[in-house]
Amino acid sequence: MIQDTIAAVSTAIGEGAIGIIRVSGPDAMEIVDKVFKPRYAKDIKNWSSHTLHLGTVIHPDDGKAIDEVLVAWMKGPRTFTTEDVAEFHCHGGSLPLRETLEAILRAGARAAEPGEFTKRAFLGGRLDLAQAEAIMEVIQSKTRDGLGAALSQLEGHLSKKIKTIDEQLLQVMAHLEALIDFPEEDLPELSDEKLLSDLENIRTKLEELLRRAESGKVLREGWKTVIVGRPNVGKSSLLNALLDEQRAIVTDIPGTTRDAIEEMIDLGGIPLRIIDTAGIRETTDLVEKLGVEKTRQYMEQADLVLFVLDGLEEITEEEKELLQSLADRPAIILINKSDIKDRRLEEKDIYNLVKKPIISISAREAWGIEELAEKIRHLVFGDEAENKAILTSNERLDLITQARHREAIERALQHIRQMIDAVKLQTSADFLTIDLRAAWEALGEITGKTVGEDVMDKIFASFCIGK
Amino acid sequence: MIQDTIAAVSTAIGEGAIGIIRVSGPDAMEIVDKVFKPRYAKDIKNWSSHTLHLGTVIHPDDGKAIDEVLVAWMKGPRTFTTEDVAEFHCHGGSLPLRETLEAILRAGARAAEPGEFTKRAFLGGRLDLAQAEAIMEVIQSKTRDGLGAALSQLEGHLSKKIKTIDEQLLQVMAHLEALIDFPEEDLPELSDEKLLSDLENIRTKLEELLRRAESGKVLREGWKTVIVGRPNVGKSSLLNALLDEQRAIVTDIPGTTRDAIEEMIDLGGIPLRIIDTAGIRETTDLVEKLGVEKTRQYMEQADLVLFVLDGLEEITEEEKELLQSLADRPAIILINKSDIKDRRLEEKDIYNLVKKPIISISAREAWGIEELAEKIRHLVFGDEAENKAILTSNERLDLITQARHREAIERALQHIRQMIDAVKLQTSADFLTIDLRAAWEALGEITGKTVGEDVMDKIFASFCIGK
Repeated sequence: MIQDTIAAVSTAIGEGAIGIIRVSGPDAMEIVDKVFKPRYAKDIKNWSSHTLHLGTVIHPDDGKAIDEVLVAWMKGPRTFTTEDVAEFHCHGGSLPLRETLEAILRAGARAAEPGEFTKRAFLGGRLDLAQAEAIMEVIQSKTRDGLGAALSQLEGHLSKKIKTIDEQLLQVMAHLEALIDFPEEDLPELSDEKLLSDLENIRTKLEELLRRAESGKVLREGWKTVIVGRPNVGKSSLLNALLDEQRAIVTDIPGTTRDAIEEMIDLGGIPLRIIDTAGIRETTDLVEKLGVEKTRQYMEQADLVLFVLDGLEEITEEEKELLQSLADRPAIILINKSDIKDRRLEEKDIYNLVKKPIISISAREAWGIEELAEKIRHLVFGDEAENKAILTSNERLDLITQARHREAIERALQHIRQMIDAVKLQTSADFLTIDLRAAWEALGEITGKTVGEDVMDKIFASFCIGK
Repeated sequence: MIQDTIAAVSTAIGEGAIGIIRVSGPDAMEIVDKVFKPRYAKDIKNWSSHTLHLGTVIHPDDGKAIDEVLVAWMKGPRTFTTEDVAEFHCHGGSLPLRETLEAILRAGARAAEPGEFTKRAFLGGRLDLAQAEAIMEVIQSKTRDGLGAALSQLEGHLSKKIKTIDEQLLQVMAHLEALIDFPEEDLPELSDEKLLSDLENIRTKLEELLRRAESGKVLREGWKTVIVGRPNVGKSSLLNALLDEQRAIVTDIPGTTRDAIEEMIDLGGIPLRIIDTAGIRETTDLVEKLGVEKTRQYMEQADLVLFVLDGLEEITEEEKELLQSLADRPAIILINKSDIKDRRLEEKDIYNLVKKPIISISAREAWGIEELAEKIRHLVFGDEAENKAILTSNERLDLITQARHREAIERALQHIRQMIDAVKLQTSADFLTIDLRAAWEALGEITGKTVGEDVMDKIFASFCIGK
């Protein structure tokens, strides 16, 4: 079906020692023949697969030399796209890459669309859709755990789980259909109990997958975190201490509104998206400036609230009010300035107000920051040491990181739950199959088995060019 | 001598489909063995050179999977560095690259310094210094001709020319030494005439090389161009027309002073560095704002002056004065608004004032811009069609683009000229050899034969990391 050969620059834009142009499709070899003069193995058609060749890129029209390159030749189907692939390893400047790409297009290739190489890998059966999506996740990963989860998905661990459930669904389907086709025969294998236990087994598996979606979302998108507190309580020092603690600043995200700039930091493997509401860094006061009501709104939108108290001061009425409103939110209370004597706030006093983790810190001395990081990890992953882990460290690699997958699992789960209810009400098999099919199709969207072309195109369009 | 193995990311920084980490040195194979689990050809030690292998990068300490990669294995000495080289083709995100590099360093490699791979290629004898320098030129080239010149230098064309002159110098040296060692013998081959003609031959060759240095400088650094003219004469429209004409905006160079922003444009292959003195683009008036004296200073610093006149207005005294001061400078006079009737300025009137190329243009209509581009090309390369070319299009590929090379050739030439004078004055052979040796050493600096370690280090330090 695919007739044309595509080409694109596959390395990041900018100056580097090496830049790669990838060519994939049936004419890859012919195009190499037109634009490449090898220095040694001149007989291009006899190159072995997965070999590298030094030589010169020339323009196919006038034979003018463009760059000295290495060509990597990989014969399909054992390639990324499953097609014949040639990679031109050029000098990594914008001009050599542009000129080489131009020569390749002139020789008959077409400029690849974003994600088109991966799309071909998907269409060629090398990857399913979940694996294809994992590639962009690997590239965009922000923390080690995030990278680990993406890699695991790329290796097909999620797909394998989905496939197991998929097979169970098909078994139930076969039973239901037998029941519909031969309603007279009493099929002993399909008692309601058996059907119910099969469905409950599937439900449990889906629920387990879903349980991992929240942690997965954190790894992928980061935890939206607000730092709340009175003036001079040490919000700015805390933010700086957090920034110092992280392995590397991952990225600055330009805020959508002018008064909320986000800063992504990697705290012990958990990416926190610190919402710098109206400039914590400028040591202005969030509560005072925004008022209690607005502060509460910020806290409600956040995935995590870090509430900073001044250990040297009595608690105010406003603080009390805000602390109590935290009851049902993921929050950690920090008693700052705990390095100074004259301390007036005790952890137990606060704990009587709100049952949340409380840590005594000194933001100025970067004291207690590691304990804070550990507490945040527990909120995301649970406590492995105390056997209360939401996820073990191995499971952390098997997370649902894509909203699209989570949504599909939720839909499948809903249909299975409806089926369970229906079986209990002894609804006829015909009706059951509708839900069953819907659940099966929802799961199929994850691996791409039942996904429409429009959804597929949308997914690949979000890839970078050259991928 | 080189004992350690170096590693660095060799692709541009940023997000891309593929990112490469290059490893070079005696332990490259051992490091691959520690951090890479191949999917197919598991016996790493038996890999053929110049082959590609799919597999997983693992951390050497805990065996944790980091990324799915292709490893390119190239056995020395037929590699870029002449050492054993392994390239890890990772997913091109910052985290997979960082983690893979960390694993490689953990397995025993050392982080490479800027240009260290190329330095090893030089020390290994694969490239001479001029060729090594050409690599960064290829990467940073701004125009096709610039790329062509850099590539030609990388292929060793300049080095070959230098080598020829070098051999001639050594022949003269042998003759001179024979004369010193055996002053009594009348060596018929070493008449003064022969010596003189040899030296003059060398001088001609050096002069020819130098002739190409000016054009080479233009290709490499761009022509510093100022656009001069009265208010509303159309400077801003001209700049916009030039920007539209170019193939692509090459780059914005942040100005060193606030009132001179540079914009690099590629006009028919010639890179122009337009000095936007005090904001031509804001249609302020250069002459009025800066005064005649300051404008003249700008014109004197420029490699090219584009002097814009208003075709609808009589010429002013200030303009006359400035035009006359252009006599000995590369300049083109543009009579703008030539599309409107009521024209008052004629080309011949201006030509009477200053003998410079004059073009009637309409900046607003982008009219005459191609002719301007052609005229600028002639200024740089001469007119091939009229056989007055400074350089033919083939010669354009053999330019001296580096200031370091130009300076060395100038020094060599100076010594040869001194020798010629000395021979004419019948100076003794002993004295001649001093100049001869100095000329030979100057030329040797270009290829690196006679260059000191400090100069070498300085050259490679200007390279990017991973190169």
